[in-house]
Amino acid sequence: MHSRLHDFLNPDSIAVIGASNNPTKRGCRAITTLLAEGYPGRIFPINPREQKIQGLACYADILTIPESIDLALICTPAQTLPAVMESCGRKDVKGAVILAVGFGETGEDGQQLQNETITIAQRYGVRVIGPNTSGIFNTHHACNLVGFENIPSGPLGILSQSGNMALSLVTEAQQHGDIGFSTYIGVGNEADIAFHEYLDYFADDENTRALVIYLEGLKQGREFLDVARKVTRTMPVVLYKSGRTQAGQTAAKSHTGTLAGDYVVSTGVMRQAGITVVERSDQILAIAKTLVLLPAPESKHVAVLADGGGHGVIAADALVEHGMKLPPLSADSREQLAALLPSNAALGNPVDVAGATDANPALFTECARIILNDPGIDSLLMVGLFGGYQLRFSKTLAEAESTTAVDLAKLVAECGKPLIVQSLYAAQHPQALAVLRQSGVPVYSSVETAVHSMAALADYGIVRRRNSELPVQQSITLSPQIAELIVACRAENRCALLETEARTLLQDGDISVPTALFVTNKEELSHAAEFENTVLAMKLVSPDILHKSDAGGVRLNLQGRDDMMYAFDDIIRNANEYHPGADIRGVLLTPMVAPGAEVILGVIRDPCYGLVCMFGLGGVFVEVLNDVVFRSLPLTAADAIEMLEEIKGHKLLQGVRGLGSIDRQALVDLMLRLSALCMAHPEIAEVDLNPVMVYPDGYAIVDARMILSDTNV
Amino acid sequence: MHSRLHDFLNPDSIAVIGASNNPTKRGCRAITTLLAEGYPGRIFPINPREQKIQGLACYADILTIPESIDLALICTPAQTLPAVMESCGRKDVKGAVILAVGFGETGEDGQQLQNETITIAQRYGVRVIGPNTSGIFNTHHACNLVGFENIPSGPLGILSQSGNMALSLVTEAQQHGDIGFSTYIGVGNEADIAFHEYLDYFADDENTRALVIYLEGLKQGREFLDVARKVTRTMPVVLYKSGRTQAGQTAAKSHTGTLAGDYVVSTGVMRQAGITVVERSDQILAIAKTLVLLPAPESKHVAVLADGGGHGVIAADALVEHGMKLPPLSADSREQLAALLPSNAALGNPVDVAGATDANPALFTECARIILNDPGIDSLLMVGLFGGYQLRFSKTLAEAESTTAVDLAKLVAECGKPLIVQSLYAAQHPQALAVLRQSGVPVYSSVETAVHSMAALADYGIVRRRNSELPVQQSITLSPQIAELIVACRAENRCALLETEARTLLQDGDISVPTALFVTNKEELSHAAEFENTVLAMKLVSPDILHKSDAGGVRLNLQGRDDMMYAFDDIIRNANEYHPGADIRGVLLTPMVAPGAEVILGVIRDPCYGLVCMFGLGGVFVEVLNDVVFRSLPLTAADAIEMLEEIKGHKLLQGVRGLGSIDRQALVDLMLRLSALCMAHPEIAEVDLNPVMVYPDGYAIVDARMILSDTNV
Repeated sequence: MHSRLHDFLNPDSIAVIGASNNPTKRGCRAITTLLAEGYPGRIFPINPREQKIQGLACYADILTIPESIDLALICTPAQTLPAVMESCGRKDVKGAVILAVGFGETGEDGQQLQNETITIAQRYGVRVIGPNTSGIFNTHHACNLVGFENIPSGPLGILSQSGNMALSLVTEAQQHGDIGFSTYIGVGNEADIAFHEYLDYFADDENTRALVIYLEGLKQGREFLDVARKVTRTMPVVLYKSGRTQAGQTAAKSHTGTLAGDYVVSTGVMRQAGITVVERSDQILAIAKTLVLLPAPESKHVAVLADGGGHGVIAADALVEHGMKLPPLSADSREQLAALLPSNAALGNPVDVAGATDANPALFTECARIILNDPGIDSLLMVGLFGGYQLRFSKTLAEAESTTAVDLAKLVAECGKPLIVQSLYAAQHPQALAVLRQSGVPVYSSVETAVHSMAALADYGIVRRRNSELPVQQSITLSPQIAELIVACRAENRCALLETEARTLLQDGDISVPTALFVTNKEELSHAAEFENTVLAMKLVSPDILHKSDAGGVRLNLQGRDDMMYAFDDIIRNANEYHPGADIRGVLLTPMVAPGAEVILGVIRDPCYGLVCMFGLGGVFVEVLNDVVFRSLPLTAADAIEMLEEIKGHKLLQGVRGLGSIDRQALVDLMLRLSALCMAHPEIAEVDLNPVMVYPDGYAIVDARMILSDTNV
Repeated sequence: MHSRLHDFLNPDSIAVIGASNNPTKRGCRAITTLLAEGYPGRIFPINPREQKIQGLACYADILTIPESIDLALICTPAQTLPAVMESCGRKDVKGAVILAVGFGETGEDGQQLQNETITIAQRYGVRVIGPNTSGIFNTHHACNLVGFENIPSGPLGILSQSGNMALSLVTEAQQHGDIGFSTYIGVGNEADIAFHEYLDYFADDENTRALVIYLEGLKQGREFLDVARKVTRTMPVVLYKSGRTQAGQTAAKSHTGTLAGDYVVSTGVMRQAGITVVERSDQILAIAKTLVLLPAPESKHVAVLADGGGHGVIAADALVEHGMKLPPLSADSREQLAALLPSNAALGNPVDVAGATDANPALFTECARIILNDPGIDSLLMVGLFGGYQLRFSKTLAEAESTTAVDLAKLVAECGKPLIVQSLYAAQHPQALAVLRQSGVPVYSSVETAVHSMAALADYGIVRRRNSELPVQQSITLSPQIAELIVACRAENRCALLETEARTLLQDGDISVPTALFVTNKEELSHAAEFENTVLAMKLVSPDILHKSDAGGVRLNLQGRDDMMYAFDDIIRNANEYHPGADIRGVLLTPMVAPGAEVILGVIRDPCYGLVCMFGLGGVFVEVLNDVVFRSLPLTAADAIEMLEEIKGHKLLQGVRGLGSIDRQALVDLMLRLSALCMAHPEIAEVDLNPVMVYPDGYAIVDARMILSDTNV
């Protein structure tokens, strides 16, 4: 069953409100384009001052049209919108595209006008694209409401917060000549239809096989992630997210009025959802093309086949930097290659034919066959001059090159492993490269673009397999003890839990915390016999003092009764000085923990994506390098493992500095339990386990903070 | 005065040894190309089996040619070379280009053949390019010995260890249509003429205004840096260095037989020498074009002028990530822009005209004038659709766009500030962009390429100004004490200095080291009264035990006489156990230093570049992140400051973690003194100050190791 979006994105009838005979106006150009490109449905211009527009009968009002309308393209200025939307609603229009600017992106007045318009639309059930959008197109329905010329038709959808970025992609594709688009939607201010609804639409659209997104900011991030996670299992989604820097975030705010949010959080949770996040706008189309054309390889094991040293060396460096692996070929493969190639050829990986193809391009197919049949190799990157031998050496080679291209394409189809070709002649479109392109082999000019595409393809394969694993929802039921604890906090109007309370919650989630003793007075302390033979830390417990260290509320390395008595007096005195009249509940005694790899683990409620887990290394790593990664909750084991591997200082977890390799399994287990705990207790807004010491065997949570959400959820 | 290289790279006569009538042979194609392109000098084919080749009289032997020969192009196989070179020498040929492979790049036998050939050449004074080279061309002399077709002539020189990379650059330039080349030299195995000699040649060549280098490995790195440092003051040098990864290094080894060396060392010392190091091969030409066409800006302050949000936001992010700054425009500039632009335009930086140019492209010039006249802005990047308004909106805009392009070019010429234009229509070559290109304004399709070029230009400006400062050679004279010390070490056949000796050398270089007491026995120790009131470290001094900690030869936090006596016994006992019969000279007592920012500072003798200084943060930064930077000696103050700023953890030096900001001046001073010390004492092969604690006021060298070179220098 198709969604309502499908009906008006493949409309049988279009009303152009604000139609015009003036060719500089959108209300004129849209109709010109629809007519010129043979739009198969009916077009109804609306303009009270005209009788005919471009030969079509013109209506004074949408309500006077004698037929039903799927889509209204609204070209009139912002202030007309409430009235225009009222008419659209009464006409029972399914969807409206609002081009006008002057809404939410301009400030408070515009936001009010936008709210008013959308309220009317929603009352009537009219779904709205925009406002502040460049429009839409659907090449498979000859419905071009954005006016780009000669849009190549094909399998890529575009969802963009910038019309110019969509135009960039279309223009670039015109030059490539081997990829095209299905539907483009200019999201604009996302006032009604949200990003994730569009995502759903594209996933259902039979003409779209991969989606490209230019994103500045999301309004409903959590819903977007949920849909993306499903969609990317079958369809690649390539996304460029702007706002990596403060300058970019400010510019985005003034462009679409959206908040870019934290880039590191965004990319963490998007990659988790299976999205291919691209960080150069000039690589978007190339990567999308590769993802839509080629099968994802089984592994990151790639081989390079070069016809000269330079490109092979450059490709090898770039592949490794993109996380790919260049294993040596098998002895058998090397032997077969040696039989084909001159003695100065390199048979490692890269394979460098060392000029042997100059006079005989067919050697490429023979080499590629050997390499692709090697069981240790799952993908092949060919770099150099292929396609241009006829230009570089002799026109007589043109035919041999074309035949080679046909054979290469056949070979690839047979073996099911992906091949990407980089040729310095790619932009000159020689015949052999045209053959490859027609056969679905991507061809690029740039070694780096080819490499980046290959790496993105391998990553997509991994992510798609990984996302077939679903997060295990540990079923935690709210124990009476926890319910009471939360009720007590609420009664005291507290959001920040005491450390004693946070420990109770963690334990309820089967998370082990170091032994501790809570004492409220010196008499209890004097009975703390069990602790007297240990070196202890003593920490203030007071709902009025959250930053214990600042208040002199922490004493470390205490040993024996006298030490403890003295420390207790000291902490209480400090607390009273720091915050006279503070509600002091007592102190918590815990054994000093052994040093280990110091990590921080937290959960925060991101304004866009909801609950996300943060992981990082403690100390200088977080303070100096901001070395943290994020994933949305709930976590899978694969997510947790990726988090450990993604931090810059990941080597520290593998045992440098005389530490053994840490207990990854225990750390992953802690992360999953924390995830389950937060999912089970929606009243938890924030958790901060900082630091956690991780050892070759197990871990110790040194300090735990927990915050409840403002109100009962 | 021209160098000898000039004579044969602009040859009046060429002998083609191994000339041929077979069009698949280099000895045929070279002559065809020279004739077709109107080479103005004389061509002498050499082949004992032919009478005429392509209408030219053919000689059996170079010695029979009745004229003098500037350049011999040798197309015969490797094993003929000794005999061929003997003839060339006897003929007094100035230079030879050897195409054959099968020399040093293939292993020991090839290396021997190469040595034999070069020995003959050097005996006669024949300079050799190659072997294993693709050849050379000189467009300004119509001397094309590599056979690339339609090489655009222009100001860029190419020096490459890969012929295919040169072909890539030429092919890319053909598509751009706005940049060309002067001379290309395929370096090949660098058997005779070294990289730095070529660099000198290009610096003297009146037709070359910027140089592009593709480099796998250098043989004489120090000489290269010395020449580069001079050359880059007047001519930009853009370099791509392969071998960033192990895979790339292995591939390079098999390609040109060169050792790639440590990439981090290479890029550190090359940037120091003023070279623009580029890390994507597909950005080389774009960056070189910008550097040769545009004046370097006074600062990194750049403005972005966009005709829509998307490209502006992307450019802002990319610029900041490349180290550029986007300051807000002045109030005056904003006011002037506001008067020109609609209310929804963004007047910050980026300036987004928000569609106002769609019908009136001339607005670009007016906006650009306001921005470029802003005293806070030193460069301008224009992004979006310019040049394509005629394609996107109306053909009637073509003339307005061309006029705008003329006006923009004039404006830029007047104000002397650089302008780069990114247009999504760049590859379609519309008229307005052709005007810009003809006027020397670089135009790119990719936002990222435009940004990267602008940032490289700003960096080049900074580096060129910085390199006008010459390293101050502190005149350190070898004091008699140091001379004795070194003689004593040599007498004992030692290279590693004792810590006591290293301290003496440092002090001789005016580098302060913490007070210390060297004691040789317990009696002396019992008299160490001055030290008894301090907390001390005690370290073994033995020429047989360099790794003191491993041998239990270090004791920390000693206080009072008993502590010291016990530690002394302990250290001596440990040392004797670790290395029975070790020559134990005594122990060094030093006060424990206060914790501070822990840095490491060293000097090593790099096999390629000679003495280089290494700087990094201690602890996890070096162990986990390998966060170190390198510069060649001698250092300037600017070099030292750049080293502090270039490390990933540079924030740590600015005072995080409760430390005050460190004493940068003292640290820079230490680096310069260490540099001067090593320059003055060439017998020092290696210094390792690790760690050095740096404080808000001064520093303390905690441990010092020093190694002499193997033999007297």
